[in-house]
Amino acid sequence: MSLHDSLEFSRRGNALIGQEMFRILDRAKKLEQKGERIFHLELGEPKIVPPKEIIDETVNSLRDGKVGYCTPSGLLELREKIVEYYSALYRDIAISNIAISPANLLISQFLDIVCNYGDRIVLFPPFFPTYLAASRYIGLDVQCVFLSPQNGFQLTKENIDKAFAYNPKVIIINSGNNPTGAVYSKEVLVYLVNKCEESGCWLLSDETYSKLNYSKEYYSLINHKFPKLMVITSFSKMFAVPGFRTGVAIADSKVIDKITLSTSTLYSCLPIFVQLGVCIGVQSITSIMKDVVVHYKKIIRDCMEIINANDAIFCHEPEAGFYLFLDIRRTCMDDVEFTRQLLEKHKTAVTPGESFGYKGFVRASICGESSNVIEGIKRLIDFADVLKK
Amino acid sequence: MSLHDSLEFSRRGNALIGQEMFRILDRAKKLEQKGERIFHLELGEPKIVPPKEIIDETVNSLRDGKVGYCTPSGLLELREKIVEYYSALYRDIAISNIAISPANLLISQFLDIVCNYGDRIVLFPPFFPTYLAASRYIGLDVQCVFLSPQNGFQLTKENIDKAFAYNPKVIIINSGNNPTGAVYSKEVLVYLVNKCEESGCWLLSDETYSKLNYSKEYYSLINHKFPKLMVITSFSKMFAVPGFRTGVAIADSKVIDKITLSTSTLYSCLPIFVQLGVCIGVQSITSIMKDVVVHYKKIIRDCMEIINANDAIFCHEPEAGFYLFLDIRRTCMDDVEFTRQLLEKHKTAVTPGESFGYKGFVRASICGESSNVIEGIKRLIDFADVLKK
Repeated sequence: MSLHDSLEFSRRGNALIGQEMFRILDRAKKLEQKGERIFHLELGEPKIVPPKEIIDETVNSLRDGKVGYCTPSGLLELREKIVEYYSALYRDIAISNIAISPANLLISQFLDIVCNYGDRIVLFPPFFPTYLAASRYIGLDVQCVFLSPQNGFQLTKENIDKAFAYNPKVIIINSGNNPTGAVYSKEVLVYLVNKCEESGCWLLSDETYSKLNYSKEYYSLINHKFPKLMVITSFSKMFAVPGFRTGVAIADSKVIDKITLSTSTLYSCLPIFVQLGVCIGVQSITSIMKDVVVHYKKIIRDCMEIINANDAIFCHEPEAGFYLFLDIRRTCMDDVEFTRQLLEKHKTAVTPGESFGYKGFVRASICGESSNVIEGIKRLIDFADVLKK
Repeated sequence: MSLHDSLEFSRRGNALIGQEMFRILDRAKKLEQKGERIFHLELGEPKIVPPKEIIDETVNSLRDGKVGYCTPSGLLELREKIVEYYSALYRDIAISNIAISPANLLISQFLDIVCNYGDRIVLFPPFFPTYLAASRYIGLDVQCVFLSPQNGFQLTKENIDKAFAYNPKVIIINSGNNPTGAVYSKEVLVYLVNKCEESGCWLLSDETYSKLNYSKEYYSLINHKFPKLMVITSFSKMFAVPGFRTGVAIADSKVIDKITLSTSTLYSCLPIFVQLGVCIGVQSITSIMKDVVVHYKKIIRDCMEIINANDAIFCHEPEAGFYLFLDIRRTCMDDVEFTRQLLEKHKTAVTPGESFGYKGFVRASICGESSNVIEGIKRLIDFADVLKK
């Protein structure tokens, strides 16, 4: 045996699973290199034109030489704008309640500062894959309470009771859900926070899609001052600049201090120029989001019209976000195999339900260029239609 | 006791120390808000004008809508350029040997994939603070082999033998050292790699300042194909765009696969537009670095002239990088206290040696605007001169 074969990684190194949609993207790109045209419905990467004022400000900052470091907690001006925005909307929050970091990274940062190896976490599949990837990496005892397609994957009080029966150290929820599009009711969310307060359970509320809600009112846990609660959201997702990696954490100042130390230890800080760009966006968030919501409502309506006219796949209309979580069980094909064949044979990339902890479904991201999205959905349905028994 | 007071963090959460220079920056900024003029010698944040072609390409990419995600291992074009550059310079490397991620983050990523809690690491103080911060965070057993000011903080075979007497799982070295500016000899580095190969010890070679060397030839460990070796460097530091956060890891493909999975799990990817900018820089790295080296050589010469004319502080002339590691022991003042008073009374921000695991010294970063740097150094010397017994 050569030394090369004997490379041994740590427990964390061996537990890494990454994000499946990036592997699908890689496979799709390989097909494109061979000259194939691929319909991309795998990544949640908005293709709408980002607000001009955000790009302008970012460009001006770059031209101005604002290419340096920033304080690890994030640009003061940006944090001030965020405080202003959320204080007007929900309740008084302070600068010390805010930290800037990529939303995806904040998941690992939070879990790592509150959990030790072996601590128990409850997830509610279908879930955003990083919750599982980060939990496995850290070595948490992952327990799942499965949500039901019968009620559109709503979180219920029964689900919450089941979760607490596991006596978890931490729970992650995601209203404005990726992948299901479900928005949870105030009643259920307040019930959850109360249960967390009673039992001292940490709570991570992922509200990345809170500003992309289409039907009922969105209830944010920013309303609650529970010290073991951290809310995260992503401005770069809202403003269609996902590469900006600018997320925000809102929490008790002691939690924010730890997140800031984590940022300082791990990667120092986010660039100033992207934070200056996002800062302009936060100032006009209401007007920006109005147009964005109109855009996504239309593409969702168009997709749902096509989906509702077929009987091979089924989908709840999303209440938020830009994903469709499609029930492909009538095809009797495994979702990973379905995803593979849909890409190879029909040049359409989606993500299997398995990646979200939920077999029998696939996720189609509908934030790409509209005509491509529609063509992708049509190809998916045609494929399902041939398969269905 | 209220619930708030009872917030308990994880072992990792409690072990976070962050980076002291960002706390000094925060204190300096607070003084600036009060109207004080501060001379910034605390952060390694280059203030020279970045190459126009890099900024232009980044701006064009932003204007072109390249604001989305990238594959977690990094933009293919950038990795290709890096392969081309290093293959011509050292030995054949492949795309599969390259991962893009912030250089600072790569330290934690590497340690976390190769080490378990309690594993032993050897560091050579004075060291870049993140080595210790990441080690403490992960829970490593940190053993230190102190380098000596007598030989300009050179790494010696004796130091290496002492390190291996601890039977470490991993060693970090940093030629083109931050904070000392020492460049290690080929002979010693080859001795180290051989010892690592014999004992199966992992080796992280931080070569962030390899392209900023001024005197003797730089020996890079990229020359070696040892599978337990990872080399990191930072293009954003080289190109004076530190906010771009674009570092690179060069290692065995199995190690790179793990780094890529770590990136995918932690933060998905770096933005495309900064990677496109850096890509242009890598193409013209030789011509860009020529001007940069001339600039730093001059400011180092100017600073050394002032320092050599005084007898309160002493400094070895750096062979690489843009830091001076100043011996303040003749002042008989503790380095943390010296740093505090220098900022409060003389408006000059430096970083205490303690942050680098080495008391009795302070680090002055000389990559800021030249006249500010000179004024800062003068104030530091004047202060030391008053103190010295």
